[in-house]
Amino acid sequence: MGSMERLKRQLDFAAEAGRLKGVLRQTVLADPERPENSAEHSWHLALMALALAEYAPEGTDISVVISMVVLHDLVEVDAGDLSVYAPADALARQHAAERAAADRLFSLLPADQGSELRALWDQFEERATPEARFARALDRLQPMLENVQVGGGTWQAQGVTADRVLEKVQLIEDGSAALGRYARQLIERAVQDGILAPAPGADSRPARA
Amino acid sequence: MGSMERLKRQLDFAAEAGRLKGVLRQTVLADPERPENSAEHSWHLALMALALAEYAPEGTDISVVISMVVLHDLVEVDAGDLSVYAPADALARQHAAERAAADRLFSLLPADQGSELRALWDQFEERATPEARFARALDRLQPMLENVQVGGGTWQAQGVTADRVLEKVQLIEDGSAALGRYARQLIERAVQDGILAPAPGADSRPARA
Repeated sequence: MGSMERLKRQLDFAAEAGRLKGVLRQTVLADPERPENSAEHSWHLALMALALAEYAPEGTDISVVISMVVLHDLVEVDAGDLSVYAPADALARQHAAERAAADRLFSLLPADQGSELRALWDQFEERATPEARFARALDRLQPMLENVQVGGGTWQAQGVTADRVLEKVQLIEDGSAALGRYARQLIERAVQDGILAPAPGADSRPARA
Repeated sequence: MGSMERLKRQLDFAAEAGRLKGVLRQTVLADPERPENSAEHSWHLALMALALAEYAPEGTDISVVISMVVLHDLVEVDAGDLSVYAPADALARQHAAERAAADRLFSLLPADQGSELRALWDQFEERATPEARFARALDRLQPMLENVQVGGGTWQAQGVTADRVLEKVQLIEDGSAALGRYARQLIERAVQDGILAPAPGADSRPARA
């Protein structure tokens, strides 16, 4: 491959990736109030990785985490975004669509580079390394922070109760004990503040009230 | 500072940074046609840094470049975005506003971390390292690519002619010889395709036509 042909493929990949700016997520931003897109979400995770690096397990390479979160949602260019609270069969279909999208998108790049970046994406999906688990923790924590900022967000729009949000905290704890603890407190506070519905049958009032 | 207080400051910084999603740039995206915001622009630069890493001078630490582009526009949360073709006095005022914004924003973080990330932002501004020069090259190249995609974009909206775009190519060449060469070709082609006005007095028709 000529060097100009190689650069052209890399720029085609970057242009195709740019379509992520048009992929809307479930998350609603507070100001201006509008759906978040997957490109700016990915940027926010990279920023959070920089600010929260010290809560990753010792030895975690934060630069790998940042590369991973920059790439992690690329597949949504083809597959779109789906709520983590979608039914299991829809999530399974989404997973297959995302793998097909990864096959297509990373093959836009020169082969050596395509495999290298694809391996980062696979690593994120498989959660097999501390870097991937920390990246996934950020990816789970960020929408919770946005939901609190907007006073309910997807929790209310999708009728999600605290028990289902708590199930997702496992993924945060797997990546960072400190962020997992923080997420549990955030959920408890969200229930007390009335922006997240308590688990069916649970008492939402704080014991001290 | 207690560890919970430290985490709270870091999350406040991340939330404040998130306002970058609401800062609109001059650049217009092709599909959907709308102004680009500074958060998704920053993400796109990080993605480009990964895809184009090999065009940085030997020894450039790409992970520093990526951290830098993630942070480089944060100050626009306070100072907003200004066209690179704005008059010199407006650019000078913008520069002062951005320094004040950096003072405020990075001091939201615990002091040790605030200085560390502020140093990355200063490095980007001063273009004193290969990492900063490569990051700046990407920051100049990306809007040109978007302008070509949208068939003119800010070049036409702001009545910019090829000679003024070529002046900006210097910054790209300073960061990457190969990307500088590519940018010159892109501008030549844009003039030939009629989406960028030629320099006053120049002949826009290609010699072979």
